[in-house]
Amino acid sequence: MHEDRHNITANQTEIPSLGPSKIGNPAAAMCGPDGTACRFIGENDRVLVYPYPQDIRGKKTPPSFELAGPRSKIYFDPPKLKAAIVTCGGMCPGINSLVRSIVLQLHYIYGVRNIVGVRFGLQGFIPKYGFQMMDLTPTVVEGIHGRGGSFLGMSRGPQPMEDIVDSLERQNIGLLFMIGGDGTLRAGQAIYEEISKRKIKIGVICIPKTIDNDISFVERSFGFETAVEASTGAIRGAHNEATGAPNGLGLVKLMGRLSGFVAAQATLALADVNFCLIPEVEFDLEGEHGLLTQIEKRLDDRGHGVVLVAEGAGQKLFEGKDLGTDPSGNPVLADIGVYLKMRITEYFKEKQKALTLKYIDPSYLIRSVPASSDDRVFTGFLGHHAVHAGMSGRTGMLVSTWGNHFVHVPITLAVGHRRRVDPQGGLWRAVREATGQPSLINSNGGA
Amino acid sequence: MHEDRHNITANQTEIPSLGPSKIGNPAAAMCGPDGTACRFIGENDRVLVYPYPQDIRGKKTPPSFELAGPRSKIYFDPPKLKAAIVTCGGMCPGINSLVRSIVLQLHYIYGVRNIVGVRFGLQGFIPKYGFQMMDLTPTVVEGIHGRGGSFLGMSRGPQPMEDIVDSLERQNIGLLFMIGGDGTLRAGQAIYEEISKRKIKIGVICIPKTIDNDISFVERSFGFETAVEASTGAIRGAHNEATGAPNGLGLVKLMGRLSGFVAAQATLALADVNFCLIPEVEFDLEGEHGLLTQIEKRLDDRGHGVVLVAEGAGQKLFEGKDLGTDPSGNPVLADIGVYLKMRITEYFKEKQKALTLKYIDPSYLIRSVPASSDDRVFTGFLGHHAVHAGMSGRTGMLVSTWGNHFVHVPITLAVGHRRRVDPQGGLWRAVREATGQPSLINSNGGA
Amino acid sequence: MHEDRHNITANQTEIPSLGPSKIGNPAAAMCGPDGTACRFIGENDRVLVYPYPQDIRGKKTPPSFELAGPRSKIYFDPPKLKAAIVTCGGMCPGINSLVRSIVLQLHYIYGVRNIVGVRFGLQGFIPKYGFQMMDLTPTVVEGIHGRGGSFLGMSRGPQPMEDIVDSLERQNIGLLFMIGGDGTLRAGQAIYEEISKRKIKIGVICIPKTIDNDISFVERSFGFETAVEASTGAIRGAHNEATGAPNGLGLVKLMGRLSGFVAAQATLALADVNFCLIPEVEFDLEGEHGLLTQIEKRLDDRGHGVVLVAEGAGQKLFEGKDLGTDPSGNPVLADIGVYLKMRITEYFKEKQKALTLKYIDPSYLIRSVPASSDDRVFTGFLGHHAVHAGMSGRTGMLVSTWGNHFVHVPITLAVGHRRRVDPQGGLWRAVREATGQPSLINSNGGA
Amino acid sequence: MHEDRHNITANQTEIPSLGPSKIGNPAAAMCGPDGTACRFIGENDRVLVYPYPQDIRGKKTPPSFELAGPRSKIYFDPPKLKAAIVTCGGMCPGINSLVRSIVLQLHYIYGVRNIVGVRFGLQGFIPKYGFQMMDLTPTVVEGIHGRGGSFLGMSRGPQPMEDIVDSLERQNIGLLFMIGGDGTLRAGQAIYEEISKRKIKIGVICIPKTIDNDISFVERSFGFETAVEASTGAIRGAHNEATGAPNGLGLVKLMGRLSGFVAAQATLALADVNFCLIPEVEFDLEGEHGLLTQIEKRLDDRGHGVVLVAEGAGQKLFEGKDLGTDPSGNPVLADIGVYLKMRITEYFKEKQKALTLKYIDPSYLIRSVPASSDDRVFTGFLGHHAVHAGMSGRTGMLVSTWGNHFVHVPITLAVGHRRRVDPQGGLWRAVREATGQPSLINSNGGA
Repeated sequence: MHEDRHNITANQTEIPSLGPSKIGNPAAAMCGPDGTACRFIGENDRVLVYPYPQDIRGKKTPPSFELAGPRSKIYFDPPKLKAAIVTCGGMCPGINSLVRSIVLQLHYIYGVRNIVGVRFGLQGFIPKYGFQMMDLTPTVVEGIHGRGGSFLGMSRGPQPMEDIVDSLERQNIGLLFMIGGDGTLRAGQAIYEEISKRKIKIGVICIPKTIDNDISFVERSFGFETAVEASTGAIRGAHNEATGAPNGLGLVKLMGRLSGFVAAQATLALADVNFCLIPEVEFDLEGEHGLLTQIEKRLDDRGHGVVLVAEGAGQKLFEGKDLGTDPSGNPVLADIGVYLKMRITEYFKEKQKALTLKYIDPSYLIRSVPASSDDRVFTGFLGHHAVHAGMSGRTGMLVSTWGNHFVHVPITLAVGHRRRVDPQGGLWRAVREATGQPSLINSNGGA
Repeated sequence: MHEDRHNITANQTEIPSLGPSKIGNPAAAMCGPDGTACRFIGENDRVLVYPYPQDIRGKKTPPSFELAGPRSKIYFDPPKLKAAIVTCGGMCPGINSLVRSIVLQLHYIYGVRNIVGVRFGLQGFIPKYGFQMMDLTPTVVEGIHGRGGSFLGMSRGPQPMEDIVDSLERQNIGLLFMIGGDGTLRAGQAIYEEISKRKIKIGVICIPKTIDNDISFVERSFGFETAVEASTGAIRGAHNEATGAPNGLGLVKLMGRLSGFVAAQATLALADVNFCLIPEVEFDLEGEHGLLTQIEKRLDDRGHGVVLVAEGAGQKLFEGKDLGTDPSGNPVLADIGVYLKMRITEYFKEKQKALTLKYIDPSYLIRSVPASSDDRVFTGFLGHHAVHAGMSGRTGMLVSTWGNHFVHVPITLAVGHRRRVDPQGGLWRAVREATGQPSLINSNGGA
Repeated sequence: MHEDRHNITANQTEIPSLGPSKIGNPAAAMCGPDGTACRFIGENDRVLVYPYPQDIRGKKTPPSFELAGPRSKIYFDPPKLKAAIVTCGGMCPGINSLVRSIVLQLHYIYGVRNIVGVRFGLQGFIPKYGFQMMDLTPTVVEGIHGRGGSFLGMSRGPQPMEDIVDSLERQNIGLLFMIGGDGTLRAGQAIYEEISKRKIKIGVICIPKTIDNDISFVERSFGFETAVEASTGAIRGAHNEATGAPNGLGLVKLMGRLSGFVAAQATLALADVNFCLIPEVEFDLEGEHGLLTQIEKRLDDRGHGVVLVAEGAGQKLFEGKDLGTDPSGNPVLADIGVYLKMRITEYFKEKQKALTLKYIDPSYLIRSVPASSDDRVFTGFLGHHAVHAGMSGRTGMLVSTWGNHFVHVPITLAVGHRRRVDPQGGLWRAVREATGQPSLINSNGGA
Repeated sequence: MHEDRHNITANQTEIPSLGPSKIGNPAAAMCGPDGTACRFIGENDRVLVYPYPQDIRGKKTPPSFELAGPRSKIYFDPPKLKAAIVTCGGMCPGINSLVRSIVLQLHYIYGVRNIVGVRFGLQGFIPKYGFQMMDLTPTVVEGIHGRGGSFLGMSRGPQPMEDIVDSLERQNIGLLFMIGGDGTLRAGQAIYEEISKRKIKIGVICIPKTIDNDISFVERSFGFETAVEASTGAIRGAHNEATGAPNGLGLVKLMGRLSGFVAAQATLALADVNFCLIPEVEFDLEGEHGLLTQIEKRLDDRGHGVVLVAEGAGQKLFEGKDLGTDPSGNPVLADIGVYLKMRITEYFKEKQKALTLKYIDPSYLIRSVPASSDDRVFTGFLGHHAVHAGMSGRTGMLVSTWGNHFVHVPITLAVGHRRRVDPQGGLWRAVREATGQPSLINSNGGA
């Protein structure tokens, strides 16, 4: 069952539109004498948000998402359209592949010849930064799907909404594709609203990017699988170091500000983690059942161990400390990895027990790897569907998958609260089973 | 929308059972003072087979699958149970990881101490082959999830049903896990029926294995992603050879007897394939729109090209030839790869045009690679859910995912017809767009 | 001790020259205030061909090779020079990296601005093929060191010497870099001789390319290490297939026409090969000590096995069959892999024993992979040294390593006989030890 | 030319011996009817230390190293011998493969049945740590060559010599293999001397381990190639992050306490490093030619850059600070990576210029990866030759390669000063060329 189930209603799933689609879709040209690739998505092709019998019983119109895909009619006249792509926030595997997919689909399938890339995120819209837009053609994006990083460049943090929309108007952009995380989705919604207020016809299509896989109604975010695979290298390294030293302990910090999906999934991918700490599940440091005692027990029993900690885990240990916010507006987290390293070292020193602790923080190495085959295929589809949606005149939405179908989700649904690991669900149960870690909470009166 | 939609009804989704579950599930022990991992799946937790509004409108009980997961009560008494695992058919990445998952779940979570592995597929049940069962403990399966191949051994082909059930009875096995493809599912159903006839209490749980990803009501088969990633190496090699020679053509044969999912997906993962040929889409070899002329055009235009062919494509070219059946009972396919190599070479010779054709058939190299992180995680869950289902007394079923949920599917639903690439669907459209290949059919009167 | 020791004398190691070097080397500009990178190679900097005390005792001038590296004076005036690069023969990892190294060294260090790439090997010189030379600049070669294949294109086989030298003259090329194997070295020598006859001033510098690592006085050939690493994938696949089937036998064919270095080295890199067959060591097929009986014994004992065969092994089995020559002029070898597959299958059929034989022939997959880091570094140095040599006016030579030093070797020394695995040496001893394979020869009267 | 040339004489290369070898070498059994693998190394088989004509001219006995390999007679009686293996210091790719090679050679080729592994370095000899020796058999080492880390365990730091030799005597060990770096070699020499003093017959054979590749008369250290390949991942990540952000700078710290071989080689393996800083070449931080100004210039010109720093570079910046020594007795280095990160950030802040600095310190991730094929083959030979040497009664020596030959080197020669990158040599020249970095020294009066 989907781990995240806050209740929505049918009318919350409606996708805004710039106006009626009246132009025949040039994608129909694919349909040839072999009769393949001839089908368009109809207006009633939708998939239920809650595909469970008990959730639909007695309901007239249970909420459902519009299916993504090509429509028989489109809104924009391709030769007249100028489209723009912007990539925001932190690095994530697959961004280049996604940009390439959007460019190729616009160019070859829809015949759009005027495509530009915005440099370095939202800064690229603001004149004072002095970045020029980059013309995007099939030649420019050739081969980039195999490379890590983002060739357009990215930056964190918001920019004034009015300035961005001014820039869109000034440059005559009709369709904007925004690739980014929660902050970018908020910016996308604000841009959409500003556009609506000005009564101009510019479409805004978002493609959610979150290496933490933590956006609501986004079943799978691109780059996540690749990040998990890359993370296993760090865990294996920690395990090798731990087993190769007397009382060896490997401590690995992974991403995961609010949600521990990367850490949980990476734990399951290998068999080497003994303690997996994520933001969703609290743990005590001290006390009989606390982490320190449990690590000591593990080392006493087996002589080595691996602790994996998501960057957002254990933040209650820093309560009362305000570290401010980063350029994206997120609160700066206390560094739980460095803190645990210090506390564990102290603990063993006090106990006068040997300890060889190796701390590994591979963050940028994971964010910048090239996308796996599967993430390349996935970003290919995301790009196609973003273009189909945008060309049809839809706006204020993002492309997502739900129940394994590509769908359109209003931005308003996706922002506001995060997808998180359900401590009662199958994923966390599997982590508990894989690590064998007990509950790390000191109950009053013992467990 | 799911590409495969033959109509089923609610009562077709019922899972057979050995009897009522009355023993408390020892997995409840995971539930500790942190309050996590305490939830069981209820009797009414199901997911719709067709999660589309128009499919449920007006229906009282639209068909749905039972959700997989731990139940609060189980059927078998763990200390008294002997369980067996058998792996059948051809190699597929992830088998070892899956076996390990079943063993660890039975051992650590349910407390089953008597687990055996059947050697070399169904042959392992038949005394005349002389194979001994292998005791499976956590120590035996340590580290095998990182290795390719199958440490239990596999074999193709059926064995007499009575002999197998005799063997199960003789060895006092109460729960049998069968890992295999379409043939194995049929065998599983036959074993289940023989067991029912004998009125004995042995559960049969299947986990579908098909590198072609072609089993009905199985949304994703393990090893498929890994196989696609491995296939890209062969395509990249073909591309490098093709671009490095005058009029270079790389020809790659991949698996795909009845369904072209591997070929289609691998085509999308790179950008180097110019013609992708799969069983589901016919092509002409000769004539203006036929493959030979189109390859010639491609080489005239660009000087190099790559053709990717699934082993089951173009079989109409061999009509009238009966090549018999293989040990699994599947018809032997004519070798389309070797045939195309010959025909293309002849064609260019006749035309007196230069051609440097490099033929690559990487089959076993793909089947035997270790599973990716994602497939290791996936097989982990499949193993857990197979054990939960088996321990609860369910039988005659397989574990699958549907709409991204793990579910129970009756074997009878999964056999009988294959999942295939829909030539009208999004996957094939994407392949057509990625390759730029036209329809390869000569229509009467031209196209 | 070097396995290859045919006797040469000091005067055989002299490098031909176009004339005295009188221009200051612009590479001196690297020498800055930190005092690094200021040294040139002197005229007497040489390394012994046979660095063994007993080989130099009493000799006045034991043979030695000139050390490679920058000279203080150069022959060509960079702004007036036009240089060309040609890549010949079969694919080999590292070619792109090597071409890039030559281009960057010529451009940035020596200031040569006129560099062209010959398309598709020697064909690129011959007007009838219609290939244009490609201008090579730092931009053109950006990023190619990370890619497999050869972006210039290659072809096999010789072309008329006069036509090639005509082409060089016509296009005003002063310095030619030739990358290729034994045939290319012969062509290089012939071109050098034709140039000498015409009394024109064109330098010819070869860089030996042989994935088999079989050229005399070439201690290490680029791409070899990468090829061995890639080969291990095929062996591991064969092992996984073999262990996963009843009486499973994996049979892998690797490159190695005349020399079995790839097969021998790949055998040592894993521990999974039971029989390694190379051209240098004969084996019997039949008889008590023959391969077939020994394979049978292995399967009887262990139930699985792996045979690795170099393509040039066992050619005595085909004696009397003349299969002609390939475009490079090499005799076409009978396909020992396919032959062994057939004979082993027959043998077990006759004996009515089970056998599951999986045959893997990964050839192009190995040749087309990108170069490893170590081969990229190595090709970088080869390119630098080729340019240093060429700019100094040397000709008729190749760049090599000897005793771990980069040296200049006259082409005449390198052609004519091959480096081969010494059946008495340490490499073959190690293979025998790693496989545990016995002598596969039926001695008269038994062994 | 070898970058390291401190002068030694012929008698410095003599290898100590336990006594005359009188037992026939059982390795002769490899010699079969095919006549291969029958040769032993003779007493006069040596290779020159300085294989340069000018170095041998007029010398009667230029210094030379004894060639490694099997001797026809051995010293120890295999059935009576107990051998031990100890692994010391920090992790390095290939240790497991090397231990395996020693065990298999002792067991299968020489018939030694009593082999033990010392746990956790020299601590394993000292009773107070409580570690038991581990019996080493072919079964125990099966498959370990494919795994990173050290299954025996390692530790840093010396232990009392007398206690170690007491332990050797007490446990009746006749032959000790020591795998470790400079400190271990010193310990090996001290153990050898203590043994000599006691007039007992225990052989001590060292195999040098240094991921920095910095031991004298050791041309290549195992694990180095693998470490370079692994390092390229960090550099590529830094490059991707740098190009993806406005004024992006990637800063990577690699190993290299005294010698910058890893950093230099990794720089050459990719083309993405703009400044490579190593211990052997000084640089100024401030001033017109200093690093900070040069980084600023690079960012002004190109908008992104990568700085690679070996951990031992720039230590003059910390002059006057004494940070003590680590457990191995090496001086603790100030953290140049963290320091540069701080100073660069400050510099751009003062200049009020944008900067996105990403700092990557992958240390343990590089040390713990599995060995490459080439390093597995290399460690295989090192192990064989160590065993040949030890069984022949040699002692107080290490196994090395010199001029591409495996040789015996007295420990006394290898300790005492380090192999370092020659700032005048070809390697550093190539780095300067690859990065385009200028001299970073402010000369008096400008450059």
